[in-house]
Amino acid sequence: MDFVVIGGDAAGMSAASRVKRICPQTSVIVLEKSMDVSYSACGMPYNISDSDREIEDLVVRPAKEFQDKQGIHVLTGHQVDRIDPQNKIVRGTTLAGDPFQFFYDQLLIATGASPMVPDLPGFDLPGVMVLKSLEHGRKIKVYLKKNQVKKAVIIGMGYIALEMCEALRALDIDLAMVKSRKGLLPWMVEDLARAVQDEVQAMGVQLYPGHPVRRIESAGTGLKVICDDLTLDADMVLVAIGVTPNSSLAADAGLNLSVEQAIGVDPSLKTSDPYIYAAGDCADAFHEVTGKRTWIPLALRANRAGWAVADNVCGKTVKLHGVAGTGVFKVFGLEVARTGLNLGQAERAGFDPVGVTIKTRSRAHAHPGSSDLWVHMVGDKTSGRLLGVQMVGREGVAARINAPAVALHGKMTVEHFSQSDLAYAPPFGPVWDPMLTAANQLLKRM
Amino acid sequence: MDFVVIGGDAAGMSAASRVKRICPQTSVIVLEKSMDVSYSACGMPYNISDSDREIEDLVVRPAKEFQDKQGIHVLTGHQVDRIDPQNKIVRGTTLAGDPFQFFYDQLLIATGASPMVPDLPGFDLPGVMVLKSLEHGRKIKVYLKKNQVKKAVIIGMGYIALEMCEALRALDIDLAMVKSRKGLLPWMVEDLARAVQDEVQAMGVQLYPGHPVRRIESAGTGLKVICDDLTLDADMVLVAIGVTPNSSLAADAGLNLSVEQAIGVDPSLKTSDPYIYAAGDCADAFHEVTGKRTWIPLALRANRAGWAVADNVCGKTVKLHGVAGTGVFKVFGLEVARTGLNLGQAERAGFDPVGVTIKTRSRAHAHPGSSDLWVHMVGDKTSGRLLGVQMVGREGVAARINAPAVALHGKMTVEHFSQSDLAYAPPFGPVWDPMLTAANQLLKRM
Repeated sequence: MDFVVIGGDAAGMSAASRVKRICPQTSVIVLEKSMDVSYSACGMPYNISDSDREIEDLVVRPAKEFQDKQGIHVLTGHQVDRIDPQNKIVRGTTLAGDPFQFFYDQLLIATGASPMVPDLPGFDLPGVMVLKSLEHGRKIKVYLKKNQVKKAVIIGMGYIALEMCEALRALDIDLAMVKSRKGLLPWMVEDLARAVQDEVQAMGVQLYPGHPVRRIESAGTGLKVICDDLTLDADMVLVAIGVTPNSSLAADAGLNLSVEQAIGVDPSLKTSDPYIYAAGDCADAFHEVTGKRTWIPLALRANRAGWAVADNVCGKTVKLHGVAGTGVFKVFGLEVARTGLNLGQAERAGFDPVGVTIKTRSRAHAHPGSSDLWVHMVGDKTSGRLLGVQMVGREGVAARINAPAVALHGKMTVEHFSQSDLAYAPPFGPVWDPMLTAANQLLKRM
Repeated sequence: MDFVVIGGDAAGMSAASRVKRICPQTSVIVLEKSMDVSYSACGMPYNISDSDREIEDLVVRPAKEFQDKQGIHVLTGHQVDRIDPQNKIVRGTTLAGDPFQFFYDQLLIATGASPMVPDLPGFDLPGVMVLKSLEHGRKIKVYLKKNQVKKAVIIGMGYIALEMCEALRALDIDLAMVKSRKGLLPWMVEDLARAVQDEVQAMGVQLYPGHPVRRIESAGTGLKVICDDLTLDADMVLVAIGVTPNSSLAADAGLNLSVEQAIGVDPSLKTSDPYIYAAGDCADAFHEVTGKRTWIPLALRANRAGWAVADNVCGKTVKLHGVAGTGVFKVFGLEVARTGLNLGQAERAGFDPVGVTIKTRSRAHAHPGSSDLWVHMVGDKTSGRLLGVQMVGREGVAARINAPAVALHGKMTVEHFSQSDLAYAPPFGPVWDPMLTAANQLLKRM
């Protein structure tokens, strides 16, 4: 059997590797348009902040190792241009300009997502960067090494923007962040977003939400980021306004697209073509809370979906549960996490939601070193179900969000969740865990 | 209505305070034999390790505040000697030796637990300490202040013993720990217990498991802890071999006792007498995993049960879910946590358990500052259910144990739990959370 994979990062290499492990007789070909496979993209901000480290430190396994140890044909510099589902052929061009084609019995599209760049003047100037692939990270590191970057502008204020904000400040670069919409982290409830904003501003970062960028201009050796009533000077600009799924190959092949133009897949990761799977940042998923299709491109899902594709390719019939929208990021001293829906999402999904926000402490009464911890929790008045949690604090946030995430998978009510026997010791939280205090407060409003 | 509470710590004061809050017309009397109410007992090791702090820092609310702000009659120094359920009277004696009696309509027994002390020579010598009540903590602090304690012996190796081991080492006291049974933390699987043992020994603590103590002798200004083939010198000895429920009042009143002589209560915290509740360390609970009665005296349950008693006293009919046996403690640089059952407990409860132990990392591939993290996970081969988790590591353990704890409350299978959408960012864990890696490994054996 010939299994062909388009895209060699998390989902693609997970699938390729697992297929070879569980049905070794399969011929596995990975076609990757860049020269990099199997790397930890999420680690890039931390690598960029450390000028002593090479971007290649983030490579989990080099292409050669997949080839030599597992017999997987990893073809880098191979850009797929067209899928022919009728004849089960993929066709493309190498970086050297040579055409290639491969037959497949089963195909995985794992083309990932690409950073969005507005179609405005100056966004193609040297020094204007994006960050999604290892090649992007490499370009940023090279640029930082070759140029005296004293000040930078980040366009966007999402989690990549905020992680890069921390990374660039660690390199002692003066920083301004600008974006069109008002409010930092608009998905987050106001009290929590303000805590994040306070932290970022305390680190000397200038924040300009509500300022649509009109163009970027070069100015001497530097750049100018120009808004209607604001001009920001920069030696480097990072555009981090979000990503979009790489689904045009799939669309051109006649496969069904789904929310936000992601490739629509069923729980076994199959597209609308019975011989083509899609996984990773290019594919959609079902949401555990709404039961509806959603597009939340994150690393765990990509790895998990890659494995599930492999199982299915090898005839094992694996169906994935949905995603809960669980995520966490670090920005300076803060951990920022969420799972499930916020109030607006819950309303749009047809729930009758109510939310509560509490501020508590990260350690027990009278325990030294305690800090503020904010929790926002949303429940459904009609069913009593827990719908979502947001959390911000200096410690104990990242792992703590997993408890409500599991509750979402279990379709638990807030009442049931509130009765959970959670861990307590003075160095790690109050007797009533912040999750329980939030649940108890929320119950009063439901 | 007259509501009388015996015992003024977590369960008792939670109940008293909440009754006054939700049905303020009730007369509430709290009878506490010591002079202390409403304190954070779990914080004592951290208070003892800091000679600049007073033990009274651990008082959450002083008796006077309950009296003045809420009108709760808090009578300290009031030892109850007898409950007369026929006539609904409690009788006792004050510290001054005066008899007292109170009628009740509803009674709460919240008498807590007491440290076990073996009936052997020398355990009553000055300098031989236990730690459960604030008075015990006060005695230890006074003793440490008045005496030159250069070396100490802790008898026992449970979590109180280990927390106190860290506390005394922080005061630069040489330390030996000794106990009868072999193995540190016998409830814990070997690999994880060894990690804890390595940490404790690395801090210069001598460990002598498998050495039953025969007697303690005074020797000059110090003490000698004498085993069959081992004698340990000490300026202070801490006996921390476990606690036993204070249930004799209940037993004498004819109430049903349960496992380990704890007072048996139903999910509404009612004892076998319809007018008497029991809550906190003196009462049993149902186990979420086994469905059977268990006795796991911990602070969260005490607070939660106190509240539930209050609701029921005020006519609200609250039934508590069971406990999952979730617990965490810190010992030096390690966080040690568990929830649910270990293999032995699972077998005894009638499951067909299988376990897996993994060693993974606390942060992502190539992320600096990562450390080892061990997980042991137990599942039931027959039902597929998740039964328990143990975890040891330097970070991310305390809050992370809450995810499987919630899964236990949801009666989730290992397969369902393994599909959870858990949080990922490089500073906080691998892409596959340690919980998920353990679950995936466990599934292979089920």
